[in-house]
Amino acid sequence: MPRADLALVGFGHVGRRFAQLLEQHRELLRRDHQLDVRIIGISTARHGSTFDEAGVDVNGANARRAAGQNLGACGTSLEIIGRLARSDATLRVMVETTTLGMVDGQPAIGHVEAALDGRCHAITANKGPVAFAYRTLNDKACRAGCSFLFEGAVMDGIPIFNLVRETMPAVRVLGFRGIVNTTTQHILAALERGEPFAEALARMQAEGIAEADASLDVEGWDPAAKAAALANVLMDGDVTPHLVERVGLGPSTADAVRAAAAAGRRLRLVASASGRGRNVRAAVRLTEIEPDDILFTLPDTANALVLTTDLLGEIAVCQMAGNLTQTAYGLLSDLVTIARRSAVERRA
Amino acid sequence: MPRADLALVGFGHVGRRFAQLLEQHRELLRRDHQLDVRIIGISTARHGSTFDEAGVDVNGANARRAAGQNLGACGTSLEIIGRLARSDATLRVMVETTTLGMVDGQPAIGHVEAALDGRCHAITANKGPVAFAYRTLNDKACRAGCSFLFEGAVMDGIPIFNLVRETMPAVRVLGFRGIVNTTTQHILAALERGEPFAEALARMQAEGIAEADASLDVEGWDPAAKAAALANVLMDGDVTPHLVERVGLGPSTADAVRAAAAAGRRLRLVASASGRGRNVRAAVRLTEIEPDDILFTLPDTANALVLTTDLLGEIAVCQMAGNLTQTAYGLLSDLVTIARRSAVERRA
Repeated sequence: MPRADLALVGFGHVGRRFAQLLEQHRELLRRDHQLDVRIIGISTARHGSTFDEAGVDVNGANARRAAGQNLGACGTSLEIIGRLARSDATLRVMVETTTLGMVDGQPAIGHVEAALDGRCHAITANKGPVAFAYRTLNDKACRAGCSFLFEGAVMDGIPIFNLVRETMPAVRVLGFRGIVNTTTQHILAALERGEPFAEALARMQAEGIAEADASLDVEGWDPAAKAAALANVLMDGDVTPHLVERVGLGPSTADAVRAAAAAGRRLRLVASASGRGRNVRAAVRLTEIEPDDILFTLPDTANALVLTTDLLGEIAVCQMAGNLTQTAYGLLSDLVTIARRSAVERRA
Repeated sequence: MPRADLALVGFGHVGRRFAQLLEQHRELLRRDHQLDVRIIGISTARHGSTFDEAGVDVNGANARRAAGQNLGACGTSLEIIGRLARSDATLRVMVETTTLGMVDGQPAIGHVEAALDGRCHAITANKGPVAFAYRTLNDKACRAGCSFLFEGAVMDGIPIFNLVRETMPAVRVLGFRGIVNTTTQHILAALERGEPFAEALARMQAEGIAEADASLDVEGWDPAAKAAALANVLMDGDVTPHLVERVGLGPSTADAVRAAAAAGRRLRLVASASGRGRNVRAAVRLTEIEPDDILFTLPDTANALVLTTDLLGEIAVCQMAGNLTQTAYGLLSDLVTIARRSAVERRA
C-alpha cells in the first residue's frame, strides 16, 4: 500500500487536533484511499522539533507540549521539511499550521516554498500563503507536480475552495460577501446583548478560536486575509491583505452596535469583493445588516459566505458553529484531495 | 478528441434550456474537458422525436416545439435510447428531463434503466429515479461501468450531492432539514403579504418553475420526492416518496400563515430526515420558523438545506433564487462529472 509521510510544521491547537483527527481516520484512509499515513516530523517555532523516519511518537509529543516541555532538538522547521523531502514515501506532505504573519505572510510562505522545492505537497490552515502569494505558490506547485491546498484557511473545513473547484465547473464567481471571522462575530453579538467586549474576546481566546495575537481578529486583519485568499483563488485576483480596504472593531463599536439594533438592524464585520483579475477590489467593513438578509440570523459563532455567480445566481454557504475540529478537518480533506489525485496518477 | 453523443429524453422547459446552455459551453467542454459534444436524438412523450447520428438540428427542434409542432417520428423514447446505445462515440449520455411520475417514478426509471442496460451514462433532473429506485439504479450503473447522476434533482444546479461526495470525505450526514420546493415557498410568502393563493401559483407556473401538474408542488409530493432522494443518497436510506410523512398546502393554510406571522414566526414547508440506513425517517411538514432560524430570512424563491454532520456540525447551503438555467446547469455539471471520470479512465 502506498505510504504518505507527513511533517507537521506548527503544533499548536490546530496542529494537535489534526494529529488526533488523523489518528481517528487512519483506517478510513487505508480503506477508502489506499493510503498508509504516518507523521515523521513535527516542528515548532519556540518549542523545538522531533523527527523519526519510522514515525514520531505523536502522543508523547502531545503530552510534552501540554506539559509545556520542548519536543526535542531535531532542527528548524526548514530542516524538518528538508528531511521530509528525503523520505522515500509515495507521498510527502508538509502540513502547515503556524500562526498568521500579517506583515508578509511569513514564515508560512517560506515553509510552503521549501516543501514544493523539495517536491513535497503543501497543505495549510494558514491564510498567509494564499492571501499573500497565491499566484507564485500555485505556479511553483504546478511546476513541481505537487499540490498546494488550503481548504481550512477560510471557514475552517467547510468546503469553499473545493466547492467552486470540484462542484461548480463552468461557473464564474463574480463577487462575494460574508462573515468569515468568528471572534468578531461573537463579540458583536455579545455587545448587542449588552455584554462587555473583553469578556466576549476572552471566551474566544479560551476556546482557541481567536488568533494567538487577538488584534489580528479585532482589527480585521484575519477577515482581510481571508478576503484576499478568496479573491485570489475564486476571482483570479491579485491582492494582498494590505490592499484590502479594512476597518476593525474599536472604542466606538459598542455605540454603533446599539444604534443599529435600535433601528432593527445588526452591525456585522462583512468581507466582500467584486471585479475580476487585476481589477478585483476587496474590503472588510462594519456593515448594518437588514433583517431580511441571510447574514442577519447567523448564530454568534457562525460564518457565512454568499457567492455571486453567473450561472447559479447567489449561493450562500453557512457554517453554523465553528470549532477546532472543523479547522483540522480542512487539512484532512486536503490530504484526501492529494490521495485522490495521486490515485489518478498511479493509474495513469 | 473524444466525442460524447447525447440523447435528450424530454424536451420541455428544462430540456430546452439545457440544450441552449450546452451550446453556450461547447467550447469550454472542448477546451477544459477535451470533449466534443453533440445531441443525436430528442424524444418526447407527446410531441414526437427526432434522431440523426450526425447531430440533430436543435434550433429547428426548438422552433417546432415553440410553434406547437411535432418533432418527427423517429421512435419512442426507449427506441431513441436504443439508437443512442448503438452510437460509436466514446461517451453515450442519456439526458432525462421528463416530468415527475409520482405513483412510481415512471417513465423516468425505465429510461434510466434502458440507458444503463445499453451502457450509456444516465443524467437526470428528474427526482423520480433517485427518489424511488436509487439503490437499484446505482447498483446497475456500477455493474455497467456507467454513471447515474442527478445533481439537478434537488435545489437545481446548486451542488448538494456533489458537495457531499466530492468535497466532504470522511464526513457522515446525520440528518437534514430545509426548504426545497420553490413554488410552495413563493405561495407561503405571498399569503404572508395577504396576496391570493391562486395568483402566486400562477406566477410560478408562468415562469416554468411549478411542476406541470401543480398539485405535485402544492400537496408536497415534490419536496417528499426530494427528501427521499436526499435520504437515500446522503444517509444510505431506503425510502420512497410514499414513505415520507407528508402534508401539503390546503384551505386552512392562509389562516395558519397569518397566525404564525402574528406570533412573529413564518410558516414554511420543511423537508427533513434523521436516522441511518434502513432506519432513516423523512418528513415534509408545515413548520413555524422562529426569527433566529436561518430559514426565516430566505427570499421567497429561495431554497436552503441545512445538513447535520458529525465532523462539520451544521452546514447550510442556500440557493438565493432559483430559475430554469440553474436546473439545466445541474445537468451540465453532471456531464462534466462524466467527462472527468472518463478522462481518468482513459489515462488508466
